[in-house]
Amino acid sequence: MQPPALDLATYLEDLRRQIDATLERALDRRQTPRLIKEAMRYALLGGGKRLRPCLTLASAEAVAATAAVDPHVAHLLALPSACAVEFVHAYSLVHDDLPAMDDDALRRGRPTTHVVFGDGIAILAGDGLLTEAFAVLAESPSPAAPPGAPEAPPASRLRAVAALAAAAGAAGMVGGQAIDLAAAGRVRADQASGAALDANALEDMHARKTGALIRAAATMGAMAVGADERRLAAVDAYARELGLAFQIIDDILDVEGSHEQLGKSAGKDVAAGKLTYPALYGLDGSRRLAADGIARAKVALDRAGLGGRLGEIADWSLGRTR
Amino acid sequence: MQPPALDLATYLEDLRRQIDATLERALDRRQTPRLIKEAMRYALLGGGKRLRPCLTLASAEAVAATAAVDPHVAHLLALPSACAVEFVHAYSLVHDDLPAMDDDALRRGRPTTHVVFGDGIAILAGDGLLTEAFAVLAESPSPAAPPGAPEAPPASRLRAVAALAAAAGAAGMVGGQAIDLAAAGRVRADQASGAALDANALEDMHARKTGALIRAAATMGAMAVGADERRLAAVDAYARELGLAFQIIDDILDVEGSHEQLGKSAGKDVAAGKLTYPALYGLDGSRRLAADGIARAKVALDRAGLGGRLGEIADWSLGRTR
Repeated sequence: MQPPALDLATYLEDLRRQIDATLERALDRRQTPRLIKEAMRYALLGGGKRLRPCLTLASAEAVAATAAVDPHVAHLLALPSACAVEFVHAYSLVHDDLPAMDDDALRRGRPTTHVVFGDGIAILAGDGLLTEAFAVLAESPSPAAPPGAPEAPPASRLRAVAALAAAAGAAGMVGGQAIDLAAAGRVRADQASGAALDANALEDMHARKTGALIRAAATMGAMAVGADERRLAAVDAYARELGLAFQIIDDILDVEGSHEQLGKSAGKDVAAGKLTYPALYGLDGSRRLAADGIARAKVALDRAGLGGRLGEIADWSLGRTR
Repeated sequence: MQPPALDLATYLEDLRRQIDATLERALDRRQTPRLIKEAMRYALLGGGKRLRPCLTLASAEAVAATAAVDPHVAHLLALPSACAVEFVHAYSLVHDDLPAMDDDALRRGRPTTHVVFGDGIAILAGDGLLTEAFAVLAESPSPAAPPGAPEAPPASRLRAVAALAAAAGAAGMVGGQAIDLAAAGRVRADQASGAALDANALEDMHARKTGALIRAAATMGAMAVGADERRLAAVDAYARELGLAFQIIDDILDVEGSHEQLGKSAGKDVAAGKLTYPALYGLDGSRRLAADGIARAKVALDRAGLGGRLGEIADWSLGRTR
């Protein structure tokens, strides 16, 4: 018996509830000293869209549907991956906000982790979140999984570790942030390029800094339910386009948005002299670029016979206002 | 035909050569941006004893000998683990040396990574090393392994990921550093204990901050060659005692040593008002404590029928002068 279809907002809200419970469960380890646990919780539980772990669960569900596997089972199998991805995302925000990096005092409308806990503990909280992401994937049973939940086989979990490490590592997110720092002149003078990025370099920087983790989020969900290579590639192509569109819309919102809508300082990119999509292509050109990408994302899904909510999430990403 | 036995120094030198070649191989990834790769290499290749990866290879060799497996094969199976452990060790030094943490300008007689590359890139280089440690364990073939090397099965590598993450994570190394920072009053005033650690708290702090990774180094070597639970437990007990003795000798050398011998500022612990083993037990009492631990370490090996170089390494650790 099929339950009535929920609208997307209700569906995502349900996923977020599962994800938040999972994050709490994974954080609640007896052996962790109080101070570092509090800083990790602060960094992790301050709200946020939970886009990446929602993608993990929605991808698992879409692939599972092709094998008539129950969505609930797909979610259980993918929860450790969803949790690991959000741990990595939260760590990256804590470190990027540090005075030695982007020096942001405000995030999601709250003081950033280093403002509350000091730089030293904030660095350690980020280190802890990054490391625990891999514990969550590798331990059996996973600290992220509800008691008795089924788990993906070792080879599949090992592949998820590799995918997450590649996305987060020196060629991915860490490398993207290094390129961004250098372009902003925030490294030592003899090592900074100082030069503004061109369009290709901008796309490369975003592909590493934010795109790689969004792709890992989606493909790790597909891996958790045993996707074949063709469907993995389709989910990856979908997520690559989605990640790029997300970045373009972020840049548009930074130009158009207000402090309240974004929870961070609007117009900050422009003030910092950062190259953005609107600066390169104008607002209309940027919107077209994002819409074209989302169209390609949906074609990739269709060709691999993947339904579910992934297409709706893509459409929603174009229209979002924060 | 058995080759003639090498003395320990020559044996360790041979392991170090294998390890350094492995680290170079694992760092040399085409997709990594130049600036971050240089900072990671600087942090990783500045010398050092390579104690932890040597333990990984020696443990693998000792366990392999009980199944008449060739030492060379044992080393090949364990090289990804040895590399991952050294990546994590190097990352922890980079982050611990930051101004927001222990604020050290000198390490192994060279300027620390943040002095050379700036704080932002140093944070990212540490993040990159930590993340790549897990890539090295999970990717197949491992970027650390020589072409055509045999690899441990997925379940064993996944267990190594879990062991490394637990040792390095919030309940292990990260937690130990947070306790150390708080005791040194280097966190925000309302969160610092400010109080000196007592003997139990000192042991707990060291067990997390340095002991956990030394234990993981040894047990991951044993895992890579398929050790049974009894031998894993023996290697773990051995490494726990070895790690503690190492810390005690470090404290003794800090009191007695010179700048040249340690490659860092001698007497620094005392100057910083840190609690040390000599301060608690005196120099003779500390030496006895270390010797008792090493004796227990060797009993653990004997009971599990583990020979090889592990016992010699334990003896050497007592007599070392740097």
